[in-house]
Amino acid sequence: MKARVHITLKSGVLDPQGRAIAHALEALGFDGVQDVRQGKYIELDIAETDPERARATVEAMCDKLLANTVIENYAVDLAD
Amino acid sequence: MKARVHITLKSGVLDPQGRAIAHALEALGFDGVQDVRQGKYIELDIAETDPERARATVEAMCDKLLANTVIENYAVDLAD
Repeated sequence: MKARVHITLKSGVLDPQGRAIAHALEALGFDGVQDVRQGKYIELDIAETDPERARATVEAMCDKLLANTVIENYAVDLAD
Repeated sequence: MKARVHITLKSGVLDPQGRAIAHALEALGFDGVQDVRQGKYIELDIAETDPERARATVEAMCDKLLANTVIENYAVDLAD
């Protein structure tokens, strides 16, 4: 089963990487860029086939390793 | 208008970051992790309100700055 995880900074947490991208886009001539936030995207292929157990496993992975839950949110999507 | 961009390594391109995550998950006791691929996720807030022009602008941003199209694919989703 495939799982897709989006890890994003919580709103209110400063995103220097996003700011750098916004400035670089402006320097390249792209006007009208109001905000940029950069997050992580992780695709996992796991052996578990039960959707509920798979979701619980991936959420545990996020809590323990993939995300820093003090400053980051995560969202898990399962596919097939 | 908000745009969400997923940037992923092309299949066949080695992903050492994904391998490191897979090993770390194994070391933490998560069995059955078959594959991990790490990509980037970027949320952009742009002034453009026409969906077609917004998509063209964001694709130009990806080609010029956000993605390395030699080794990476990108996908653009527009919201509201």
